[in-house]
Amino acid sequence: MPTPPSILILMPDTTYRRLYLEEELGGLRDVGNVLTPHPCRSLDDPAVASELENVEIIVTGWGTPRLNASDRARLPNLRLVAHSAGSVKFILDPGLLGPGVRATSSASVLARPVAEYTLAYILLENKGVEDWIRNYRNERSRFYKYTDPWFDKSGNAEKTVGIVGASRVGRHVLDLLKTYDLRVLLYDPLVSEAEAESLGARLCPLDELLRESDIVSLHAPAVPATRHMIGAAQFGLMRDGSVLINTARGAVVDQDAMIAELKTNRIRAVIDVTEPEPLPDDCPLFDLPNVVLTPHIAGAHGAEVRKMTKHVIAEVKSFVETGVLREEVMPTHWDLVA
Amino acid sequence: MPTPPSILILMPDTTYRRLYLEEELGGLRDVGNVLTPHPCRSLDDPAVASELENVEIIVTGWGTPRLNASDRARLPNLRLVAHSAGSVKFILDPGLLGPGVRATSSASVLARPVAEYTLAYILLENKGVEDWIRNYRNERSRFYKYTDPWFDKSGNAEKTVGIVGASRVGRHVLDLLKTYDLRVLLYDPLVSEAEAESLGARLCPLDELLRESDIVSLHAPAVPATRHMIGAAQFGLMRDGSVLINTARGAVVDQDAMIAELKTNRIRAVIDVTEPEPLPDDCPLFDLPNVVLTPHIAGAHGAEVRKMTKHVIAEVKSFVETGVLREEVMPTHWDLVA
Repeated sequence: MPTPPSILILMPDTTYRRLYLEEELGGLRDVGNVLTPHPCRSLDDPAVASELENVEIIVTGWGTPRLNASDRARLPNLRLVAHSAGSVKFILDPGLLGPGVRATSSASVLARPVAEYTLAYILLENKGVEDWIRNYRNERSRFYKYTDPWFDKSGNAEKTVGIVGASRVGRHVLDLLKTYDLRVLLYDPLVSEAEAESLGARLCPLDELLRESDIVSLHAPAVPATRHMIGAAQFGLMRDGSVLINTARGAVVDQDAMIAELKTNRIRAVIDVTEPEPLPDDCPLFDLPNVVLTPHIAGAHGAEVRKMTKHVIAEVKSFVETGVLREEVMPTHWDLVA
Repeated sequence: MPTPPSILILMPDTTYRRLYLEEELGGLRDVGNVLTPHPCRSLDDPAVASELENVEIIVTGWGTPRLNASDRARLPNLRLVAHSAGSVKFILDPGLLGPGVRATSSASVLARPVAEYTLAYILLENKGVEDWIRNYRNERSRFYKYTDPWFDKSGNAEKTVGIVGASRVGRHVLDLLKTYDLRVLLYDPLVSEAEAESLGARLCPLDELLRESDIVSLHAPAVPATRHMIGAAQFGLMRDGSVLINTARGAVVDQDAMIAELKTNRIRAVIDVTEPEPLPDDCPLFDLPNVVLTPHIAGAHGAEVRKMTKHVIAEVKSFVETGVLREEVMPTHWDLVA
């Protein structure tokens, strides 16, 4: 039986306390030798200095100090970075990866709550719920007298939902949408018509998607090619009364152009991600009546974060026992993933 | 080949214009002889006086003037009342039904959008979205500094949803919930443990459901036995921070007790139905920060209403051709249905 690998849990206390309860720690201990102290807050912690050269697996989480290519010299036996959250981009320089060092994450697990938030707002926005709420509150009983025009444009049946990006989140949303009587369009330059069909959607160019959708939901990664992909020209194509949902990244949208369009009240938006986060206190997004603004909360919370932990522990176990990663982050794909 | 039955479309213009476009009218004409004028606004309309004795089928909708037992004398050949909406109680005296006269409705079709509204709010309320929105708007960037306690109680995974009533809507909700990582409890005195299990829920007494649920969603019919079934004692059992969703009927809840409990800010509520509707302009439900109040809009809108039409036309066709109704409203069940 081979020596169990040395595992370093590298993350801030606050992340650790949420993700690694006794049960989860036990899962890691079954797989390898978990170094103390855990969590280790930094590779510079003197308490782990003598152990670094033996570390084979680093388990990371939200707020882990960035691992750089230059750290490789201190970690000669490193074989795996296992991130107990979504994107590894914030904690990992791709130069660290390569021959002998691999990475995995719980992005697929984090994607699920984001998709659930998206689905909920698709259902409510197609119904025009925010307008019903505001008008009833403002007009009280008088609102019942003039609901007719609202009535006919409200509702989900036969509405069109446009999904921008068949990412992990996008695919979860597409899967959830299969249960509903909605037309689904998909824009993704890397997906074939046949694959789109198998995902329950009709593949189409972005412009067509924007022109035809009642809801446009963004699920593209923030990479150079997608920066500001939804700008003034794209907002101009959106239908009157349609709704933009952004749970992806603020950088995917030209925020100034979005704010200008929203100020005309021609479209609505549900915005969970912005540039920067948090927004400056005087940002108009806080006060526009046609905006639902949430503070980057679409992802995993509460018990959902420990599902990310369990997933990453399963990845570590699979790696140690068989060398297989179900969700490997490939350095060659760095420009395609969130 | 038998003579096609005479069909009277009895409903207000506004309902008719929404539910019966040319396509739907064509569907009815395939089944029988649709009397003119359509719609007929009242049985007292002189234009149909000479035809009433031949009428075999009356097609009704929202706002149809109530059909009473005494109308039977004018309608000696009536065999079916086919309601293109949900509850027939508002348009039909059960005394009209009985030997030779049956009724059907599109309640199962109307139930679906109500269930979708419910699911959307279950997903968002378990996340605490309304609190995130309000706090971010009020506190701006400062809110990022103290989100920790919010974080851990937010999220859907492993939360408990209590469904009160396996009605048509309740069953649609139970079905939609199967896709999510939620514990589901069901209270329904007419459902067995085995049936609850097949619906994806654990059957339990109402008190236990109220004590254990993060979300309590009401789907019980408004009948004498359910009047004010959720009152002060029941609100007292609900968990701190839990959420009541009422898309059923206002009468199921003791509204004064609910308002008193909501004023303490101990629980939240998503309220689509009230007593009366619309609410008086000074009702506290309009202004409480822990209430989402919508003006009875959970049901079918837009294209969804024509799905009710298509369903009721299919029922009429089935009745004429085979005598079978898939969704017969039984007078003996009058006290059990919404």
